[in-house]
Amino acid sequence: MNGNLKTQSLSRLIEELARMPGVGDKTAERLALHLLRVPKEEALGLARAIEDVRANVRACSQCCNVSETDPCAICSDPGRDRSLLCVVEQPSDLWAIEKSGSFNGLYHVLMGRIAPVEGVGPEHLTVGKLMDRVNDGVREVILATNPTMEGDGTALHLEKRLEARGVTVTRIARGLPSGGSLPYASRAVVADAIAGRRELHGGRARP
Amino acid sequence: MNGNLKTQSLSRLIEELARMPGVGDKTAERLALHLLRVPKEEALGLARAIEDVRANVRACSQCCNVSETDPCAICSDPGRDRSLLCVVEQPSDLWAIEKSGSFNGLYHVLMGRIAPVEGVGPEHLTVGKLMDRVNDGVREVILATNPTMEGDGTALHLEKRLEARGVTVTRIARGLPSGGSLPYASRAVVADAIAGRRELHGGRARP
Repeated sequence: MNGNLKTQSLSRLIEELARMPGVGDKTAERLALHLLRVPKEEALGLARAIEDVRANVRACSQCCNVSETDPCAICSDPGRDRSLLCVVEQPSDLWAIEKSGSFNGLYHVLMGRIAPVEGVGPEHLTVGKLMDRVNDGVREVILATNPTMEGDGTALHLEKRLEARGVTVTRIARGLPSGGSLPYASRAVVADAIAGRRELHGGRARP
Repeated sequence: MNGNLKTQSLSRLIEELARMPGVGDKTAERLALHLLRVPKEEALGLARAIEDVRANVRACSQCCNVSETDPCAICSDPGRDRSLLCVVEQPSDLWAIEKSGSFNGLYHVLMGRIAPVEGVGPEHLTVGKLMDRVNDGVREVILATNPTMEGDGTALHLEKRLEARGVTVTRIARGLPSGGSLPYASRAVVADAIAGRRELHGGRARP
């Protein structure tokens, strides 16, 4: 009785939606019904946006970020400091840093992080390309992988390989988030804040 | 600097994804990057599934459920009891009842619920069609809208209009969920369980 209840097209749409990360069967059902309910143009707009992205967006041959041009807008910007390289896991990490307006160097997007449990090794990422980019023009490599187990592991792996190149390797700071408070912070965050404390000299923090 | 960072196609895909219910900007970013990363066929599979659904799926002219045939598989099934009509908000509610295997009548899908705050009145739902269907062949209408404020309000509205037709109108039971326990139930659930209690006769509950 339950077999062709949802109609073939609808079942397939629910299946396809449920392949996306964080989308369970119930959410997929809800999204599929939403796509059925909205004006046809809105639903087809999403379909076309997916097709366009797959047709037009590729990896920048320099930083490996997603881009419609090669090199990407950042790599081809003459105003950026080419001696600074910020290594991130994903394009969304790069977007977050760009949004903060706190960095004016170039990026390198790993397109993931080393995760032995999931079978992701450095050979599945753009690590080889990163090593090729680190030449004598690069003064500092900032490891901006996330402060998670995998992100830290990835940073450790890169640090070892990069130090042999004689380049300064730094890691983004960890501690209490700005606006946060000690009673609400997790033990790991508090431990980072204590371990990473800085001496104050004349009212100014110094590493 | 932030303007064309995400590329035109990618920004549009993120926007289109974020139009879906429960999908915020961050989730949309994550889904868009997922669709960029997976094999091209998987991403295009989703796009085609959306197009197919919009091309093939329509409303059953009898019960208003989504269907590729008209009448739908349930309405055209000669084995179903045509004197019983179960009114639900959404196709997903119908799917849940079919999955339980506890109902063998016909359905009527409202395609929403009355929600004055959102400006949704009975005229935006398939209420008119429901009234047309309730003829002398129908013995009982089960109101299976959800036990929420809007679902209850919708049931109340339908009850008033249906009772004038001389048809038996029932409401699905509410109380403690099977497998649940009183200490973990909300006050509203406990109140429903008490208010809806039934007298036991020879060990069997009777309304």
